[in-house]
Amino acid sequence: MTAAPLPETTRLEAFSDGVFAIAITLLVLEIHVPTIAESAAEGGLRHALAERWPSFTGFAISFLTIGIMWANHHAIFQYVRRADRRFLLVNILFLMGISFVPYPTAVLAEHLPDAASRLTATLFYAGTFVVMAVLFNAVWWTGIYEGRLLGADVDREGLEVISSRYRLGPVAYLAALALAPLSVWLTLGLHVVMALFFSRSERTRS
Amino acid sequence: MTAAPLPETTRLEAFSDGVFAIAITLLVLEIHVPTIAESAAEGGLRHALAERWPSFTGFAISFLTIGIMWANHHAIFQYVRRADRRFLLVNILFLMGISFVPYPTAVLAEHLPDAASRLTATLFYAGTFVVMAVLFNAVWWTGIYEGRLLGADVDREGLEVISSRYRLGPVAYLAALALAPLSVWLTLGLHVVMALFFSRSERTRS
Amino acid sequence: MTAAPLPETTRLEAFSDGVFAIAITLLVLEIHVPTIAESAAEGGLRHALAERWPSFTGFAISFLTIGIMWANHHAIFQYVRRADRRFLLVNILFLMGISFVPYPTAVLAEHLPDAASRLTATLFYAGTFVVMAVLFNAVWWTGIYEGRLLGADVDREGLEVISSRYRLGPVAYLAALALAPLSVWLTLGLHVVMALFFSRSERTRS
Amino acid sequence: MTAAPLPETTRLEAFSDGVFAIAITLLVLEIHVPTIAESAAEGGLRHALAERWPSFTGFAISFLTIGIMWANHHAIFQYVRRADRRFLLVNILFLMGISFVPYPTAVLAEHLPDAASRLTATLFYAGTFVVMAVLFNAVWWTGIYEGRLLGADVDREGLEVISSRYRLGPVAYLAALALAPLSVWLTLGLHVVMALFFSRSERTRS
Repeated sequence: MTAAPLPETTRLEAFSDGVFAIAITLLVLEIHVPTIAESAAEGGLRHALAERWPSFTGFAISFLTIGIMWANHHAIFQYVRRADRRFLLVNILFLMGISFVPYPTAVLAEHLPDAASRLTATLFYAGTFVVMAVLFNAVWWTGIYEGRLLGADVDREGLEVISSRYRLGPVAYLAALALAPLSVWLTLGLHVVMALFFSRSERTRS
Repeated sequence: MTAAPLPETTRLEAFSDGVFAIAITLLVLEIHVPTIAESAAEGGLRHALAERWPSFTGFAISFLTIGIMWANHHAIFQYVRRADRRFLLVNILFLMGISFVPYPTAVLAEHLPDAASRLTATLFYAGTFVVMAVLFNAVWWTGIYEGRLLGADVDREGLEVISSRYRLGPVAYLAALALAPLSVWLTLGLHVVMALFFSRSERTRS
Repeated sequence: MTAAPLPETTRLEAFSDGVFAIAITLLVLEIHVPTIAESAAEGGLRHALAERWPSFTGFAISFLTIGIMWANHHAIFQYVRRADRRFLLVNILFLMGISFVPYPTAVLAEHLPDAASRLTATLFYAGTFVVMAVLFNAVWWTGIYEGRLLGADVDREGLEVISSRYRLGPVAYLAALALAPLSVWLTLGLHVVMALFFSRSERTRS
Repeated sequence: MTAAPLPETTRLEAFSDGVFAIAITLLVLEIHVPTIAESAAEGGLRHALAERWPSFTGFAISFLTIGIMWANHHAIFQYVRRADRRFLLVNILFLMGISFVPYPTAVLAEHLPDAASRLTATLFYAGTFVVMAVLFNAVWWTGIYEGRLLGADVDREGLEVISSRYRLGPVAYLAALALAPLSVWLTLGLHVVMALFFSRSERTRS
């Protein structure tokens, strides 16, 4: 019952916050700035910007999803109060996924206007989030496993609500991916819906 | 009156700070470094650097504006002491705007020297800040709504001063945008003036 | 025995965390996004992505290694509780190494498919981590030197375990480098093994 | 004597740390990765990397200088314990300078091998640090002005030592700049010397 020898989660959270904040902010770098020549060729800057809609769409969906994942990652540490090396390692793998997101986002933005590669790009994008949802669960289950890393005053009810909701993640993201051959727009729309769904608090009263 | 179950704002502030700090620092990446060949073609490096003035202008205005927005975002948390999921979500949308700023800044820098696309670029740039001002107000009003998230010892007078000043933001930025057809330089100059105006403290005595 | 005049390590840790988090997240920017034209030329987006495997490999190894180095850097500050200017300077040199890692990673990713330059790229990559291991030890030994910067309640046993393990680092990374002429894949595989080895806690019980 | 109404410097420091950490880590992005074709054309990857020495030099000098500036910025807040809006604004201008550093560094790296533009690039680089030294002093003098923002237990002696040393900064960096027409290498070497000089603690005993 000696909590002291285990490291605090403060710096782990700060490091994670850093990776989240940077990954989410790097998304904008992938949006191409139309040059003067390109704008002239594409019928003016207004049209040139409008043609960047796949980039704006990808930016918005990825930003929202990473943002909500950050909020839920945040929520984990209301329960998990200590960290051992296994938890640290799993968290690093999860952060690897987060910092990877700008890449499939850029691939999606590049290929969304192209009928030949649109589906592949969407599957790659949606597949990344399936992996992310699995990794997120890995962090959560490693954190609450056998209660070793939980705080003493843990809210059991909130823990149950979170557990059952997070378990839903991989399935929901896989379903969204599976619908891509039907319509990539449906898949992308579901990503927004899922982000909003997972943004709900685990507490019914707040 | 049980404040404990709601999450603290510490990590929310840290995450927001991260996004602010990264977005503000990424601005520099959009300034093109003249190559040896370009410098030779443009009459020497000194001239080549001088011709980058639209980039330097955009960098300075955006940096100043994001910097002041950071300071004011900071000020919000002297009043808002708790965060529920709705506040979190609105804050993520606001941060999406902040992290987007390097894009319109780069568009402005690219198109400011071009008479044909200068106005469109300035409208896009100024329009982004209108949206930012609206989102900033959304964060503020969600935070103080019904007093649920305020600290117990809240300074009512400062709250009033801030509220009335922030309310001014969207109107002022919209006015600056509306003047762009008259002169894009006036619009950009007003952005500096507004940044300095909004840098004032809400307390007359400090 | 007056600890007060020496600066706390809190802000040093926060700054280091920032550099770690940014360097680790910048890795993704080095992975090239295949354009529509490239994908078509390379037999579809699926093939074009699959051909990026050296980038994905470099990304994963570097991410894992920096991540574990972060965790171990973290561990240092469970022992080192104060910082003088010498420690600060050595830590800055170490962070210079960390922030440099995206460069050899990109060089490796670019040249791994090229038989003529593969070995040189791997030596450059592995050499960077030899230097990193030396710099990491420099931070550690500067921190515990004569016990001036240690906390009063320092865990002597953990200190010994860490010291002997960190001392192993430069030797192990040098050995991995030396094996590159035999097989670059062996060298890269050993980097994963070493990252996992150094992810072990210094405490046998946790 | 009512300290409470003024905001704490904690979040200001965190934000500044973020900008420092990002600016310092972005430096690496400016180093060009030689492609397979370039390496082959330049006589192998080893030669191609060796020819990047101006980039490595610029990276190292800028990293060291920003790193030491971070440490000294850190030191300011051992004296300045509160922040008003004027201090905040001056600090934002200083951070604007810090986040700008990757640009002159990239310009220097690009033009150092070119006899025609080498001097201009060095003057631009050294000029940036003259401005930085002036801005650093502006932060310091705004912070200690009339003692309004100082802590109650301020170390007067350390304050004097710091003040006289920081005052030296603009002069020293201007002198280094003035020597550039004589030799750009002397100027760059002096930047390393100055970084090491300013890394000294203000306390003789530590």
